[in-house]
Amino acid sequence: MADSKALTTRAADFSAWYNELIARAQLADYSPVRGCMVIRPNGYAIWEQMQRALDQMFKDTGHQNAYFPLFIPQSFLAREAEHVEGFAPETAVVTHGGGKELEEPLVVRPTSETIIYAMYAKWIQSYRDLPLLINQWANVVRWEMRTRLFLRTTEFLWQEGHTAHATEAEAEEEARRMLGVYRTFMEDWMSMPVLTGRKTDSERFAGALRTYSCEALMQDNKALQAGTSHNLGQNFSRAFEVTFQTAAGDLDHVWNTSWGVSTRLVGALIMVHGDDAGLVCPPRLAQYQVVIVPIHRTDDERATVLEAADRVRRELAASGVRVHLDARDGMKPGAKYYEWEGRGVPLRLEVGPRDVAAGSVVLARRTGGKKETLAIADLPARVHEAMDRMQAELLASALARRDSASIRGATKEQFLAHVEANAGLVYAGFCGRGECEADIKEQTKATIRVLPDEEFRSPEAPERCMWCGRPSVAEAVWAKAY
Amino acid sequence: MADSKALTTRAADFSAWYNELIARAQLADYSPVRGCMVIRPNGYAIWEQMQRALDQMFKDTGHQNAYFPLFIPQSFLAREAEHVEGFAPETAVVTHGGGKELEEPLVVRPTSETIIYAMYAKWIQSYRDLPLLINQWANVVRWEMRTRLFLRTTEFLWQEGHTAHATEAEAEEEARRMLGVYRTFMEDWMSMPVLTGRKTDSERFAGALRTYSCEALMQDNKALQAGTSHNLGQNFSRAFEVTFQTAAGDLDHVWNTSWGVSTRLVGALIMVHGDDAGLVCPPRLAQYQVVIVPIHRTDDERATVLEAADRVRRELAASGVRVHLDARDGMKPGAKYYEWEGRGVPLRLEVGPRDVAAGSVVLARRTGGKKETLAIADLPARVHEAMDRMQAELLASALARRDSASIRGATKEQFLAHVEANAGLVYAGFCGRGECEADIKEQTKATIRVLPDEEFRSPEAPERCMWCGRPSVAEAVWAKAY
Repeated sequence: MADSKALTTRAADFSAWYNELIARAQLADYSPVRGCMVIRPNGYAIWEQMQRALDQMFKDTGHQNAYFPLFIPQSFLAREAEHVEGFAPETAVVTHGGGKELEEPLVVRPTSETIIYAMYAKWIQSYRDLPLLINQWANVVRWEMRTRLFLRTTEFLWQEGHTAHATEAEAEEEARRMLGVYRTFMEDWMSMPVLTGRKTDSERFAGALRTYSCEALMQDNKALQAGTSHNLGQNFSRAFEVTFQTAAGDLDHVWNTSWGVSTRLVGALIMVHGDDAGLVCPPRLAQYQVVIVPIHRTDDERATVLEAADRVRRELAASGVRVHLDARDGMKPGAKYYEWEGRGVPLRLEVGPRDVAAGSVVLARRTGGKKETLAIADLPARVHEAMDRMQAELLASALARRDSASIRGATKEQFLAHVEANAGLVYAGFCGRGECEADIKEQTKATIRVLPDEEFRSPEAPERCMWCGRPSVAEAVWAKAY
Repeated sequence: MADSKALTTRAADFSAWYNELIARAQLADYSPVRGCMVIRPNGYAIWEQMQRALDQMFKDTGHQNAYFPLFIPQSFLAREAEHVEGFAPETAVVTHGGGKELEEPLVVRPTSETIIYAMYAKWIQSYRDLPLLINQWANVVRWEMRTRLFLRTTEFLWQEGHTAHATEAEAEEEARRMLGVYRTFMEDWMSMPVLTGRKTDSERFAGALRTYSCEALMQDNKALQAGTSHNLGQNFSRAFEVTFQTAAGDLDHVWNTSWGVSTRLVGALIMVHGDDAGLVCPPRLAQYQVVIVPIHRTDDERATVLEAADRVRRELAASGVRVHLDARDGMKPGAKYYEWEGRGVPLRLEVGPRDVAAGSVVLARRTGGKKETLAIADLPARVHEAMDRMQAELLASALARRDSASIRGATKEQFLAHVEANAGLVYAGFCGRGECEADIKEQTKATIRVLPDEEFRSPEAPERCMWCGRPSVAEAVWAKAY
């Protein structure tokens, strides 16, 4: 953390800013293995908070965790035609084990539908075994050509939910429910507004009937797919013969869903809230929500201040605040401020001899504004208030930024201008044809992020496809994306 | 769970009992991938409780979590001579990625010393960066010939701690501290007594200076290595050039430790406490500590009983008990008892119409003994008492079993008889020579589990090696082992 050079600004070079922020805050590092990253303790602590919150939400909606093998026989991947086409080109393949060449190569899981549904075929016999609601926290590998820390790496960490249902309607309901869980998590915990909706066929998960997505807008006005939920229909249950006896005594194939979010969310968090001083972490996901920096010159002052600071620390911890007292010697308060700002700690409390004498501390917010002097007596309540307010304000300002970067009912010319200027999201009519979509992508690099759910649609449905002028079948949201 | 055939008894065939118990309780399953298991939700829930407890203990001792790549360049493994010799024969090797043959094959991590210390070389510059105390929760792969669910599988889940220190003494202290953490966890959470001590050179971790181990005795009188902690000396820091500037301004190599426990602990839990009816789970690690089974015949009874049972459930949950109300219809109470016994739930509460009228419930313990009628009024306190008592009693009875299966100061003849009869642990003198150790292993299959720490040693130090009669250099504990 000795590096005191300012970060490249977001305005000057967003991508350089992103990489420098991650290095400065020690969130992650490049590894000697091509395309693989190391998640350092400061970054992993954010992921742990995310995991904890999501895991509770999954359990509250009836899911249980399990663990399935890392390796998948190559032949399994081939059983679902679209799936193998989508994933085979980006797999890592184990050909040797225990010093011998394997009879059948093993793929390192890029996702686990095939191995999991092979097990479900064994476990599910009757409608009484349904629904089966399982989640897995795991690492997966997809051989990527261009990698970026957190956003796209050869190996990444994620969770993948896999469920089996007796009816199509139940599977659809589950896929939508989990999309809602993701949206709630992203809004309430990450303070990150997302659009939800359906993906077009070209962006659909390989093997799914329908893919739903949460899409977020980053500060460089590029969209990021933050989480997806798939209604898999009976595609995999047919490929893996996952059948069940219905209540009526017939034999039917189950209906599956799968859904996942990954360590990519840490990248999203950085790009939604970070500023030119470094990371800005919403309080609910911060490893340390409050850092206390003692200020003292003489040894006497030091003893008094540290004692008071530690009392404050204990009181805050007892009230459920994740708090750290930075008692390092040989480092000036200013250097500590700088370091904790870079790491995104929401609140800083400064405690000096005069504060101790007055029974108060000074509160500084990571998001700026005037410092405030607070009485130690009611500190826990005030800190919780400040955190709640920051959590809400971060969401509100990200929302305002997204709205101001969105245009609706765009003509082709407006669309081209908006995309060319990297100005954000475009809502417009779409004819539903893959040709149009492909043409737009080729000419502008913009893609349809989602066909938005009702609550995100424009008040008036567009009449014509923005690109070809044919009748519109659905409003679409376009943007350049990560 | 429809299977109502009794398990093979432990006495008849311990190994068959173990496998049947796992299947019956749905803890794990065989997968289509050679040597890899599936950890089913009931088994994973135990692992999650273990993780939670251990993770908190690691954090309380100053460690942070991080994540390092799954893949390790083959050349990295080769840098530490003993390490490559120990692990290379059992690796899985990725030779192809993204459809192309790789220039350098990648090994799927069998353990992460090499990749982690390569990163430490980058992160550590000065004594101010030390100690560096990092833990990783991860999957690892070791190509095993003979596999057994939880005990020995090609892929398994574990944690691996990796630390760097400025002095040999600090590394030694850390290695011993984490051995102590493991022992505390095994005794206090798993109710599993362990012997701690040092491994002989033949059982030392490949690349370590010294390996310490926690060894437990299973009910079939075989020992199981439950966790290890290694003082790695400067072996890896020399191989990976992990150097630091000392306070005096010199350049020195850091001193490393590593330590790990794995999903093998779930297997240990089964074999230490299980009985012929199935799993017996110590309360602190049970997914459900209490299951409530309602008993009713008429619809009226059903409504009354379920309402009371749910009130009990809510009260227990509010007092911090992990409790489940088994309200399934179409299943007799006896069938439910049988199922929850198989799954090892510590306490069962039976609630019938007469209990509701009397304001009481009936408590049955998984470990047997008379059922007890308890007033609902002070149920939470009584349940917590019963759990604490069971937690302690399980430890005490495992300890008594181990003591009665141990002989001390054995002669060669007594040793041979004890080992031949699969009667447990033998404490005896050891000359310290590898030849003796190898000879004993070849003739009897018994190995030295540990050179025990002081608190486990016999009151009188043995004078002669039990096997060859040369002077003893240390007391040793022998047993057949998993």
